[in-house]
Amino acid sequence: MKQRILAEAERLFWKYGVRSVTMEDIAKQLGISKKTIYQHFNDKEEILYQVIQDKTVRNLSEMDCMAIEGLNPVEEMLYVLNMMQKHADQVSPNLMVDVKRYYPQAFALFRQYKEGQIMRSILENIQKGITQGLYRPDINPTILARLRVEQIELAFNPELFSTDQFTMQQIQYELIHHFVRGMLTEKGFTIYNQYVNQYNHEVH
Amino acid sequence: MKQRILAEAERLFWKYGVRSVTMEDIAKQLGISKKTIYQHFNDKEEILYQVIQDKTVRNLSEMDCMAIEGLNPVEEMLYVLNMMQKHADQVSPNLMVDVKRYYPQAFALFRQYKEGQIMRSILENIQKGITQGLYRPDINPTILARLRVEQIELAFNPELFSTDQFTMQQIQYELIHHFVRGMLTEKGFTIYNQYVNQYNHEVH
Repeated sequence: MKQRILAEAERLFWKYGVRSVTMEDIAKQLGISKKTIYQHFNDKEEILYQVIQDKTVRNLSEMDCMAIEGLNPVEEMLYVLNMMQKHADQVSPNLMVDVKRYYPQAFALFRQYKEGQIMRSILENIQKGITQGLYRPDINPTILARLRVEQIELAFNPELFSTDQFTMQQIQYELIHHFVRGMLTEKGFTIYNQYVNQYNHEVH
Repeated sequence: MKQRILAEAERLFWKYGVRSVTMEDIAKQLGISKKTIYQHFNDKEEILYQVIQDKTVRNLSEMDCMAIEGLNPVEEMLYVLNMMQKHADQVSPNLMVDVKRYYPQAFALFRQYKEGQIMRSILENIQKGITQGLYRPDINPTILARLRVEQIELAFNPELFSTDQFTMQQIQYELIHHFVRGMLTEKGFTIYNQYVNQYNHEVH
């Protein structure tokens, strides 16, 4: 039951943000009573906290898979984009704003994840890219990894990117492609162009 | 006298941030009494507000000069970098943090400037770059202009970019070059490389 509550809460949070989803809503969607939810969780913030924690663990194992599959750094970046694209249309623009403003503990957990795992995996990507000659040797990996980490949060901020004007997919696509291109060497561009052409064939 | 106070306050704010600079400090540096300052300004925030307003006007006329000089969009971006580099070593990392946290009116003025003039001039740069075939035709000018505007604030945030680790110059250099490269076409790269080589000759 705990897992079902978490799964449903995640779906609703992603779709509507956190503030507008009540314990009542979650219970109703699952056809259970609010009392049942309170047997497992003290309040909505506890559910949110658990949802973020679980998601973090899942993302980490996805990243491990990526390393196992032996993608090169350029493919890796575009693979992350594909993953984000798949989920982005389900994400409410309210989600990040709600968490940041009203759920400090959950936001601290997200930040911790961002500072730790995400930062580390981007840094690794950049360093691997330089070693393989796909990214310029003269870039500063720490500064650019930080830039990329911050872009993730920027993209979720509806005050910066109006959701009337752009879909989350458009924003992510634009930012990641621009980010990767800014690092590429000539050799990197060859691989990048191959990947982009191949992907466009698959889509159209 | 008013202009001298503003000039000295600007110098001190840039160097030490706003919070740690007192009316006393400004008066002492000018060899005048605090009373003289209070004849012109009600408080420190009023001075700060005026400093930001004046700086905005000055920056605007610099940007107009740039357009008159007929630089192409790539040169224009790197020219802005040079201007920033010249001033960056004088900027305290506390400045933006202080203004954001403790001087809401002054920060609102800065934001207004950022949203208006800076946003507009970056958008124009990107559109001109596309028209001249230097930037990719498939980029989204609005999304990338927004990214660049936000980078200006990111670079000033010592929580993101540790000032022990990097100088403001390094951060600005890294971010602008990465930003421009991410937009370039092959034709754009030719011009960019010429400019970079030329600049390196001048420096070394």
